[in-house]
Amino acid sequence: MIKERNEKLKIIPLGGCEEVGRNMTVFEYGKDILVLDLGIQFPEEDMPGINYVIPDTSYLRGKEKNIQGIVFSHGHMDHIGAAPLLINKLGNPPIVGRPFTIEMIKYRQEDYSRGTSKSLKTICIKDVNEKIHLGSFTLGFFQVDHAIIDAIGVIISTPAATVIHPGDWMIEHNPIGREKISYNHLANLPRPTVLMLESLGATNSKKPVTEKQMMENIKKLIREAPGRIIIATFSSQVERIKQIIEYGGQINKKVALDGFSLKMAVEIAKNLGYIKTKEGVITTTENISDYPDNRVIVMCTGAQGEENAALAKIIDGVHRFIRIKKSDTVVFSSSVIPGNERTVQRIRDKLYRQSDNVIHSEIMDVHASGHSNIKDIQDIIEQIKPNYYIPVYAYHYMLKESAKIARAAGVLKENIVVPDNGSIIEASPKGIRPLEKKLPINYVFVDGSGIGDIGEVVLNDRKKLAEEGMFVVVVVVDKKTGKVKGSPDIISRGFVYLRESKELLSETRKKLIGMINKTTQSNGPVNWPNMKEEIKNKLGDFLFSRTERRPIIIPVIIEV
Amino acid sequence: MIKERNEKLKIIPLGGCEEVGRNMTVFEYGKDILVLDLGIQFPEEDMPGINYVIPDTSYLRGKEKNIQGIVFSHGHMDHIGAAPLLINKLGNPPIVGRPFTIEMIKYRQEDYSRGTSKSLKTICIKDVNEKIHLGSFTLGFFQVDHAIIDAIGVIISTPAATVIHPGDWMIEHNPIGREKISYNHLANLPRPTVLMLESLGATNSKKPVTEKQMMENIKKLIREAPGRIIIATFSSQVERIKQIIEYGGQINKKVALDGFSLKMAVEIAKNLGYIKTKEGVITTTENISDYPDNRVIVMCTGAQGEENAALAKIIDGVHRFIRIKKSDTVVFSSSVIPGNERTVQRIRDKLYRQSDNVIHSEIMDVHASGHSNIKDIQDIIEQIKPNYYIPVYAYHYMLKESAKIARAAGVLKENIVVPDNGSIIEASPKGIRPLEKKLPINYVFVDGSGIGDIGEVVLNDRKKLAEEGMFVVVVVVDKKTGKVKGSPDIISRGFVYLRESKELLSETRKKLIGMINKTTQSNGPVNWPNMKEEIKNKLGDFLFSRTERRPIIIPVIIEV
Repeated sequence: MIKERNEKLKIIPLGGCEEVGRNMTVFEYGKDILVLDLGIQFPEEDMPGINYVIPDTSYLRGKEKNIQGIVFSHGHMDHIGAAPLLINKLGNPPIVGRPFTIEMIKYRQEDYSRGTSKSLKTICIKDVNEKIHLGSFTLGFFQVDHAIIDAIGVIISTPAATVIHPGDWMIEHNPIGREKISYNHLANLPRPTVLMLESLGATNSKKPVTEKQMMENIKKLIREAPGRIIIATFSSQVERIKQIIEYGGQINKKVALDGFSLKMAVEIAKNLGYIKTKEGVITTTENISDYPDNRVIVMCTGAQGEENAALAKIIDGVHRFIRIKKSDTVVFSSSVIPGNERTVQRIRDKLYRQSDNVIHSEIMDVHASGHSNIKDIQDIIEQIKPNYYIPVYAYHYMLKESAKIARAAGVLKENIVVPDNGSIIEASPKGIRPLEKKLPINYVFVDGSGIGDIGEVVLNDRKKLAEEGMFVVVVVVDKKTGKVKGSPDIISRGFVYLRESKELLSETRKKLIGMINKTTQSNGPVNWPNMKEEIKNKLGDFLFSRTERRPIIIPVIIEV
Repeated sequence: MIKERNEKLKIIPLGGCEEVGRNMTVFEYGKDILVLDLGIQFPEEDMPGINYVIPDTSYLRGKEKNIQGIVFSHGHMDHIGAAPLLINKLGNPPIVGRPFTIEMIKYRQEDYSRGTSKSLKTICIKDVNEKIHLGSFTLGFFQVDHAIIDAIGVIISTPAATVIHPGDWMIEHNPIGREKISYNHLANLPRPTVLMLESLGATNSKKPVTEKQMMENIKKLIREAPGRIIIATFSSQVERIKQIIEYGGQINKKVALDGFSLKMAVEIAKNLGYIKTKEGVITTTENISDYPDNRVIVMCTGAQGEENAALAKIIDGVHRFIRIKKSDTVVFSSSVIPGNERTVQRIRDKLYRQSDNVIHSEIMDVHASGHSNIKDIQDIIEQIKPNYYIPVYAYHYMLKESAKIARAAGVLKENIVVPDNGSIIEASPKGIRPLEKKLPINYVFVDGSGIGDIGEVVLNDRKKLAEEGMFVVVVVVDKKTGKVKGSPDIISRGFVYLRESKELLSETRKKLIGMINKTTQSNGPVNWPNMKEEIKNKLGDFLFSRTERRPIIIPVIIEV
C-alpha cells in the first residue's frame, strides 16, 4: 500500500488521561493501528462492589484486523491488568514487551483462564536496542527508571512523526552499580518528535529519595535489628527485593519470602536470571523458627493494608507461622497509594500496638518513589527537546500543570495538547492538533464475571442502598373484596434495626393497609402502578418524618 | 466535703484517641467531674449513610449531677460538633469557652433545635487570664495558635495534679502583628503537671509554612490577579478572612463573601468585634458585576470539594451569580483533609478545565496548617517540662510516635501513658498509671434523626448491599396443593441490570419453583424457615455460578 503524502499520525488515548490507571493509547497511521498498554483502574469510593475498571475499546470494534500489535511499557497492573480481558477481544495481535513484562502478562492470562497463555503471540524484547517493525510502525525502546524491573520507554516511528513515550518513569539520581540514565540521545530522533509524558509528578516539588539513600537506610535497619526484621513492600519491587536478598546473604541472615504475588514475582525473576541467589539464603516462613531472631529477614506483601495479604495475616494473628513480637522491626518500604490512606493508617495502628519498632516513610527514607517530580519533568523535556508535547497518565489537573512545565522548558504553546480520554490528536510535520470531535468513552466496570454489564443504574442503586438501605413491603390483596389480607410483610435491610423498631413497623403497616383499602374501595378499577408510586411517596415521607432517612421503598402487591 | 488525702485525678479520654474527631475527655476528682470538648468524627469509608459519629458517653449515665462543667478548647466541629446532641444528655451543665467558641456552640444548638440555645448555661472567658472554679477544679487558660480564632489551651488544677491541655495547636513561627507564643510560663504551674498533647503532627517532619509567608503569597496573588480572584478556604479561618478583607480595603478591591457557614462565621466575628470592616469593602456576589473584574475578590467555602458548597456551585455552573472565567484566579487556601483526597482531585480537575490560574498548596504556600510538626512537639514539651505526658487527639500510631518524641525531650518512660478511648488514667504526686480495666467504648452513629440506633448489623447490611446488591423473591404457594401459584416475583437492586438479564431471571424462577414444589410435594408438613434457608443457599450458589456476585437474597413466601 502506498501511503498518502499527507498521512497524519493519530494519537488516541482511550484511558489514563482523566484518572490514574486503565492506561491505554491507540496510534493510527493510515489503516494501521498500534496499541500501548492495557491497564486497569482500581474502583473509586463511589463504585461499590466493582472489582476494577478497564478501558473502553468500543472504538476499535471492527478494526481488530488492523491492529498490528500491543506494546506494554512495564508489568504494573495499571499497564497490563486488562490484558487477559482485552487481548482476545482485540483479535489476539502480537504483544510486545521486555521479558519480565511478558511473563507477568502470561501469568495474569493463566490466572484468568487456565491454559490460555499458550495462544498469546509474544514478541519479547531481549535487547533494548532492538527495532521491531509492525505494519507502518517501527518500534524502538529505551531504558527508564521505574519501580519495577524491565520498565522501558517506547519510540514509535512513522513517516508523519516520531512518538517518544517513557511509560511510567522517574529519574534515579543516585543509582546503585550503574550510571544515571540520560535521555539526550532521544533529541536525535527523526523530527517532528512527540513526547508523551506520564505526569503524576507534575505538582510534586519534593526532593526525591535516591535508591542509594534508601538502600543504605534499609541495610542499616537490617544490620542493627535487635530481633527479626519484617519488610513489607510491593511485590513488583523485584530490584529492591533482590538487593535485600543479596545483602541478607552477605551478612549471614536468612530471607523468608511471603505473600503469593511476591513469591510469584521473585520466581519469575529467578527463572529469567534476574535474581541469582546464594545457596541457602532464601528460606520459608515455616522454617524461620530454626534460626535466631536476629538472623531472620521476612519480606512480604501487604504494605497497603490489604486485607488478605501476608502482613495483615501476621498482624491479625492468623498467619500460619508468624506472630509479631515486641522485638520485631517492621518496615513499610512503600508509599501510600491514593485511596489507601485509611487502610494503611489502620494497619499501622494495629502494628504499633504489637511492635515498638515500626518504620515507614514518614519516619525514615525507606522507600523511593517510582515517579518523577517537577524538576525531573523539566529535565527530561530539556534533554529530549521534543517538537510536540502531550502530558498523559495522570489526573487532568496534573496534565495541565505538566503542560505549564513544558512551556517553561521551551515547548511552544501551540505544540502542546492536553488530552482527555477519547481525544484524537493528529500529528505531522505541519503541526499537532486535537480534532474537535472526541470519541465517547464510558466506564467499563468489571464485577465478578461481568464485564461492562454494570452501568450507572445499578451503581446508583448500590450507592442508595448503602446510604439509606431498602424497605420492601409485600401486600396480599383479595381480588374479590379489594381488601388487604392479613398483615403486610415488611423486609428491610440497612435502614433501621428492625427488632428495635416495632412501633415504626406497626404504624407503617397500618398506613399501608389504609392507603390500599381506601383506593380499592373507591369506584372503578385500581391502577396498580399508580398505587405503587403513591405507596413509595407517602411511605417515603412517613419514614423520613420519623427517621430522616430515605430508604429505597419497593412495594410488592399480590392479588389472590 | 473533705477530700481524702490520697484522692487521685482520673483522666478518661472517651474519644479522640483512636481516630481523629469525636474528641472528648473526662476528668474526675472525687465525685466531681469535668468534661473537655464534645466533638464529632466524620464517617469513614465503611460507614455508609452515617452522618457522623459522636462520643460514647454511657459511662456518665447516672453521674450527670456531678458534672461541674464542659470546657471547649475551640470551635471546630471535632471539638464542639456533638454539643447539641450531648449537653442536655449530660444534664445541661455550664459550658465554658472563649466568646467565638460559645457563639459557635449557640449557633449549632439553634441549628439543631430552634429556640433551645437560650437554655444553655454559658461561662464566657473574656480574659485569657481568668480563673474559673468548678467544684474541685480550678480552670486556667492560655493562648494557643490554631486555625480558628479564640482557640485556647486549658489548665485544670486539682490537689492531685495539674493538667495542661493545649487543645489543637501549632506554633506560629512568624505571626503577623504580635510576638511568637512562648509556653515557658506553664513550667511554673503546681506540680505534678500532666501535659495532654494533641499529636497529629507526630510524624510530620515538614517545615511549617508561616502566617507571614502565606499572607504575602496571597496578597501578591490578589494584587496581581489579571481578573477576579476567588479564594476558597475553611469557614472557620476567620483570622485569614479578616486579613484578606482588610487587604482588599487597602488596595481598593471589593470582597464578596459566599457560602453559608463562612458568612455566618464572619457575622459572628463581626458581632464580637473581631472583624472591623471599612465601609463599602464587603459586598455580595450579586453585586460583583458592578465592578471591574480586577477589583473583585470572592471568598467562599468548598475547598474540600463539598458537593453543595459555594465553590462547587460556581464550578458546576449552578451558582446564581458567578461562573468561572478563563481569567479568574482561583486559590485553594486550604489543606486536603484526609478522606477528601478524591473529592478535592475532582474539583481541581473541573476547575483546571475552566481557569488557567488555579493555585493550591502544591503550587504555592497559600495555606498554613493548624497543626504542629515533630520539631514543635519537641519544643513545646521542652518549654513546659511536664512531669507526666499523655499524647491525645490523633491516631494510635501518632500517639506512639508522640510518646517517642516526649522521651527524647526528657520525659521518663514510666511517666508517659499512651491512652485508648476508654482508658482510665490515674495521676497524683506519686505517679501516673492507666488502670488495667478500660471502659467499653462503642461507636455512636448519627444517621438522620437517629442517634446510636444504627449498629453493626445495619451497617454490615449496608456494606453488603453496596457491594453486591439485593435479590428479593416473592413466591405465592397454594395452601391446599402446596404448589407455587403463578410466576414468582423477583425484585433486585444493585445486582445486575434486570432488563439485560431476562434469561438469568427466568432460570432463577424455574429453579425456585422446582425447589419449592419438590419440598411441598414430599410427605409431612413443610418447614418454611428451613425452606427459606435452602432457597438462600441454593439460589445464592446459582447466581454466583452465573455472575460471581453474591447479593443478599431475601425469600418471601406467601401461602394463600
